Amino acid sequence: MKILLVGASGVLGSAIAQELGPRHEIIRAGRSGADIAVDITDANAIRAAFEKVGTVDAIVSAAGKVKFAPLAQMSSEDYGAGIADKLMGQVNLVLIGQRYLSERGSFTLTSGVLSHDPIVAGSSASMVNGAIDSFVRAAAIELMPQRINAVSPGVLTESMAGYGPFFRGHEPVPAARAALAFSKSVEGALTGQVFSVL
Amino acid sequence: MKILLVGASGVLGSAIAQELGPRHEIIRAGRSGADIAVDITDANAIRAAFEKVGTVDAIVSAAGKVKFAPLAQMSSEDYGAGIADKLMGQVNLVLIGQRYLSERGSFTLTSGVLSHDPIVAGSSASMVNGAIDSFVRAAAIELMPQRINAVSPGVLTESMAGYGPFFRGHEPVPAARAALAFSKSVEGALTGQVFSVL
Repeated sequence: MKILLVGASGVLGSAIAQELGPRHEIIRAGRSGADIAVDITDANAIRAAFEKVGTVDAIVSAAGKVKFAPLAQMSSEDYGAGIADKLMGQVNLVLIGQRYLSERGSFTLTSGVLSHDPIVAGSSASMVNGAIDSFVRAAAIELMPQRINAVSPGVLTESMAGYGPFFRGHEPVPAARAALAFSKSVEGALTGQVFSVL
Repeated sequence: MKILLVGASGVLGSAIAQELGPRHEIIRAGRSGADIAVDITDANAIRAAFEKVGTVDAIVSAAGKVKFAPLAQMSSEDYGAGIADKLMGQVNLVLIGQRYLSERGSFTLTSGVLSHDPIVAGSSASMVNGAIDSFVRAAAIELMPQRINAVSPGVLTESMAGYGPFFRGHEPVPAARAALAFSKSVEGALTGQVFSVL
């Protein structure tokens, strides 16, 4: 398969590339250090990237940022930033990418455990992750025979240095384990699923 | 209790007013036909409304619109409209309203069944409803001792004339039944809950 991997240079993206790379052609996309430069908050940049890449058999996103801050300090604009990046960035990958995805190709987006297991200062992540999971369930019934799933991992082991204090008591997930769920989505046949990796 | 009810003139809002009105002072807010005029997509209008109303013991929202259209016809802007209205409109009610809500007061937002039981042409509603449910779960742990819940009703019996063709096979919920869940949220003691009314 020819797979477009967005967010390829991140911790999760690197693990996905390592998992899928031996069996497939991976085109790495991302803000920097990738085959294709793309900022997913910019719909025109997404369009330009697909024009360069052409048709692919899988579109995998491990991209998306949100702000972590106490609710009392969060502004409407802070939520808007997470919505524009992790939520609508990934949704725009689907809206634009559906025309560049092969007939039975798959989308795999990334959400996360905070949708249903919240932490202090994580309300933007919770909101965005919940939105992604529900969008994927809904989009699946209209995209068929193309497929779409989300991977919802716990906090990554590799990110504990930075995120650990926010995620006390959470059992970290090695990125290589989370990457298996991307393999299941891309190389399996399920659609409309949220693969929880805890 | 003094209760601010946003979206008071809608089908659901009217039923909530009927349920809570006999026991509480209801201040009706909405785009039109209410005690207080407020468009929840306008943060300044929300601020102005709270300045008029002062401190309340419950903030109830039955407001929020999203676009229903096939995924293939949905643009990024169409999703953005639902995000600005039903999602961020209600979130802004919380961000701004927390300073006007009594110490043990409650927020009750409205989401809906499409978060996990999608229909064709409903992907924006699914996304927004999933976002609201997850936001509520997360916000609850930071707002305490203030409380926040969501009510997630199925399609309303009273709305079947317009929405029926989209919701084939769904069992409609009378607005008066959905209103009971708002009573449970406002007059009970739970927080961080999504009350599903099916």
